[in-house]
Amino acid sequence: MIQEYIEYDVIIIGAGAAGLTAGMYTSRKRLKTLIISIDIGGQTNLTSNIENYPGINPLQGSELMQKFREQAQSFGCELIMGNVKRISKQEKNIQEKKIFVTELFSGEEYFSRSIILAFGKVPRKLGIPGEERFLGRGVSTCVTCDGPFYTDKTTAIIGGGNSAIEGAIELGRICKNVYLIHRRKEFRADEVSLEKLRSLKNIKLILEYVPTEIKGDKNVKSITLENVHDKTTKELQIDGLFLEIGYVVDTSMVKDLCEVNEKKEIIVDMHCRTSTQGLFACGDVTQLPYKQTIIAAGEGAKAGLEVHKFLTGGKGVSIDWTH
Amino acid sequence: MIQEYIEYDVIIIGAGAAGLTAGMYTSRKRLKTLIISIDIGGQTNLTSNIENYPGINPLQGSELMQKFREQAQSFGCELIMGNVKRISKQEKNIQEKKIFVTELFSGEEYFSRSIILAFGKVPRKLGIPGEERFLGRGVSTCVTCDGPFYTDKTTAIIGGGNSAIEGAIELGRICKNVYLIHRRKEFRADEVSLEKLRSLKNIKLILEYVPTEIKGDKNVKSITLENVHDKTTKELQIDGLFLEIGYVVDTSMVKDLCEVNEKKEIIVDMHCRTSTQGLFACGDVTQLPYKQTIIAAGEGAKAGLEVHKFLTGGKGVSIDWTH
Repeated sequence: MIQEYIEYDVIIIGAGAAGLTAGMYTSRKRLKTLIISIDIGGQTNLTSNIENYPGINPLQGSELMQKFREQAQSFGCELIMGNVKRISKQEKNIQEKKIFVTELFSGEEYFSRSIILAFGKVPRKLGIPGEERFLGRGVSTCVTCDGPFYTDKTTAIIGGGNSAIEGAIELGRICKNVYLIHRRKEFRADEVSLEKLRSLKNIKLILEYVPTEIKGDKNVKSITLENVHDKTTKELQIDGLFLEIGYVVDTSMVKDLCEVNEKKEIIVDMHCRTSTQGLFACGDVTQLPYKQTIIAAGEGAKAGLEVHKFLTGGKGVSIDWTH
Repeated sequence: MIQEYIEYDVIIIGAGAAGLTAGMYTSRKRLKTLIISIDIGGQTNLTSNIENYPGINPLQGSELMQKFREQAQSFGCELIMGNVKRISKQEKNIQEKKIFVTELFSGEEYFSRSIILAFGKVPRKLGIPGEERFLGRGVSTCVTCDGPFYTDKTTAIIGGGNSAIEGAIELGRICKNVYLIHRRKEFRADEVSLEKLRSLKNIKLILEYVPTEIKGDKNVKSITLENVHDKTTKELQIDGLFLEIGYVVDTSMVKDLCEVNEKKEIIVDMHCRTSTQGLFACGDVTQLPYKQTIIAAGEGAKAGLEVHKFLTGGKGVSIDWTH
């Protein structure tokens, strides 16, 4: 494939809160910036109503991410859709510099002096029989996206964190009945959310049970649960099943390029630096445990400022004009 | 002084972007939260037009901070104006717990199980003759606040970073003439800002000069400058002088309570923890080098989540109800 050689100052992988904010900051510094992403908005998109992003009245996550995108592009940030296969650092000379090569699954290659990894995490799966078969046919990892298909029907949601609680609340307002299934007796969620949950009488808690099988014909019909103590099972008739059991990260694109922890999260220092010079990371893709839009945005801004510092050697801009 | 004993879960010192966001997060977790601050909005207030806060169209810094405050209070966060003299950790038993005592200069004491330090920095002074005498009488550290007093007049602004450049641009739109005085030939500022600066023909750059004296009668009349190379001096006739030469931190309220660096900034780890258990810090008061509203907000959210984890021992919320 013949491709014009364009060298970006920085390529950002991912267009969620972290990546788009990083793009705003590098573009404002007039660094030639390209964001490559499989989607716009990342995990924030899946939040129906964000009320803890400072400075913003509650709104849809996807609307907030739309604003992020517009802002980044208004500063000159380029954005393309693409699925990155591998990033490598080429020691060979192209224009006498070491550069990063970002290779897409589609075959294109992009070149840059620095990289910001900001592609976040993806929803975790259960790994039980029936899950793969019914994914998209009754099994969903996005209440905001798919909840409305189950108006006045019966659904189940699995999980015990904020996302599960908020998902259950959202489903509770749409569905006839909602089962909230959690393997423990405790929830790791905000009190405010738990209070809302308690107020919705059509949500039934199924605690200390784990799912073992999803059954159906063309679509999901039931889920089989096992009690964590006495191993007894029961089957719930449902029309839809939502998974909110956390997230996993796939950092195989930078395999052998930088350090990751046992969860395969990119290890960064307080300045978003990885173990490889010129390679930065921010947001959910890192070992930081917080899954919050405002925190991802803050980390993205840091990464953007650090890339600028890296590329300019921390020097200021010389003044070649006076009037 | 007889004061009712109220024990807060967390007291936050400072109501800028970091402190208000921390307050949102702790209040949403239903932690009893009190913010004590000498102002609302901190340094963000002094920015006339924020265009790099993700998700928000450009607006006055003070307007953005107003939204932060409303949001924090809407979740139940308490807020009082007060100047903190000292924070101490009392090992003695009050209700059988170790608690923090926050003492104000006015004498009141407040009690809490944890503390978040988020009081930021204050503008640095020049330390030259005339500065103290004319502060508030021609010498200002806030373009946004005091710039409009100099409509169609001649002002000077000192500094070489983003704040100085943006201040000069703002003054350039108000004043007849503006001198931008900087001790170096380079600016540490965003390219976007420098382009705006270049377009304003009434801004004159005075590079490689440092101020040595401020003169006047009732108000400022002139500033004396010295060339950094040949030590020659010159005097500029001005009506107002703005200082944008960075910030300093006063962490004497936690003297001997936690580690600080050589700049007296609070040293935190990636989780906003200081060297003292239960004492957290976020934003400009820490050793992190970024002075950005979005980064301070992100750090505030982290601190809020970490306080919750500290107070609950990282445990979830037990479910004592089902329906």
